[in-house]
Amino acid sequence: MGRHTLEYPKTSDNTVRRHNERATYALSTIHRLINASPIIDVAFNTPDSPFPAVLPMIGQMGSFDRPSADIGDPQDLYIHGYVSARMFNVTKAATTDDQKEEEKGLPVTISASHVDALILATSGFNHSYNYRSVVLFGYATLVEDEEEKKYALEVITNGIVPERWQKTRQPPTKAEMTSTSVLKVRITSGSAKIRDGGVLDDKHDLQNEEAQNSVWTGVLPIYSSVGEPIPTSYNKVEVPSNISDFVKDYNKENKEYALEAAKK
Amino acid sequence: MGRHTLEYPKTSDNTVRRHNERATYALSTIHRLINASPIIDVAFNTPDSPFPAVLPMIGQMGSFDRPSADIGDPQDLYIHGYVSARMFNVTKAATTDDQKEEEKGLPVTISASHVDALILATSGFNHSYNYRSVVLFGYATLVEDEEEKKYALEVITNGIVPERWQKTRQPPTKAEMTSTSVLKVRITSGSAKIRDGGVLDDKHDLQNEEAQNSVWTGVLPIYSSVGEPIPTSYNKVEVPSNISDFVKDYNKENKEYALEAAKK
Repeated sequence: MGRHTLEYPKTSDNTVRRHNERATYALSTIHRLINASPIIDVAFNTPDSPFPAVLPMIGQMGSFDRPSADIGDPQDLYIHGYVSARMFNVTKAATTDDQKEEEKGLPVTISASHVDALILATSGFNHSYNYRSVVLFGYATLVEDEEEKKYALEVITNGIVPERWQKTRQPPTKAEMTSTSVLKVRITSGSAKIRDGGVLDDKHDLQNEEAQNSVWTGVLPIYSSVGEPIPTSYNKVEVPSNISDFVKDYNKENKEYALEAAKK
Repeated sequence: MGRHTLEYPKTSDNTVRRHNERATYALSTIHRLINASPIIDVAFNTPDSPFPAVLPMIGQMGSFDRPSADIGDPQDLYIHGYVSARMFNVTKAATTDDQKEEEKGLPVTISASHVDALILATSGFNHSYNYRSVVLFGYATLVEDEEEKKYALEVITNGIVPERWQKTRQPPTKAEMTSTSVLKVRITSGSAKIRDGGVLDDKHDLQNEEAQNSVWTGVLPIYSSVGEPIPTSYNKVEVPSNISDFVKDYNKENKEYALEAAKK
């Protein structure tokens, strides 16, 4: 509130050209979308193929140097997921001493999308989705510092279910820490694109009586839900409030967002 | 039934190295996953940036030459979405006469993921998702043939809601056809990765009484739902059966899949 809204600079990578009225460069919106995405796609180039490699991974925004950073502040993206030998090698090779400090690491493009509604118009042409998509660009390096790795794992785990890290068996074992890789992406730019609202039909279709008498037009809202928690056969613990609250909040927020977006 | 299951050849691009017991190369599984994804990510290289460009687009598998092709047969991927000036130019530049026929077009990597459950284990380390992710590699070219473009738009529209194309205002106008771009991706390889089942805890955690007395372990199934259809203010038509059936089937299938996968 009252704070200046930070935006990513527009570059040739992140500038939205089509439907640019749907674009936003605000860090807060972009970071929130990333944090709300259970899976993010990580794309990078490999020297031996014309096809970018794309791996689905799990990530959350965070700042090890300033853990209290606001969601709208500059942050890093911490990614957990198996760092393949190939990705590891490409990252290592991309991080050389003679690089400019700000370009150290593997150039990666991060993307995620949410579909909030199907928009069914009179013409096939005017069909659309309500959606929120986000893309981030940056340089990925392996997190080698033990404390930073722990910080990242906590942020990532709590990004899935709030407070989950504190409620698991602690501390992680030496073997667990060694066999877990975390990547840190220093963000250089990003953008988000959001479409909400209802059907936008052309005037000639609205005046086409035959079409209006035969085509159903409207919005089909889409939202993700979490079902009843299914305990393991050996679980001895009541569903704790952080999980039951998460389920309730998740279901409420996702459905409300989709329904509200459809009305805009 | 009784048919031979076709698989994509394993290449350095598509071979799953980590958790390869979760991998499948079957065309039928891969094509079904693509068709069930409302948004697919299209990644490609641009000559002027170290970062792959990634665009969220809409696509469906199809075969213009053999429209009756089975889902497990070789098919092309048709993509609709705004083909940016940049992508258009890169595609054009990537399609030269002296290229080998099978490498004409822009090399693209297509990816999509579905999250089916959060797997909450005793340790942070053993947390996981049930998920289905898919990746396809191929060469994209612009569809110039008018009939093929119409075929692709029909396949793509009906991929969103069955029979929708036939139930919209027909035919598309000349202007609509001209301002719509469709890409056809000739697939060279692909793979899918599927995780289902419940929590997999380590023995030492199962024997850790303190942990078992304090950590809730289990599965939170996740599934996407379609809400009640919201008609436009000017809609004059009852919700047709293709839409009401779609909503019913979508909700039933997604929820059932997530719950069944959790039990495996």
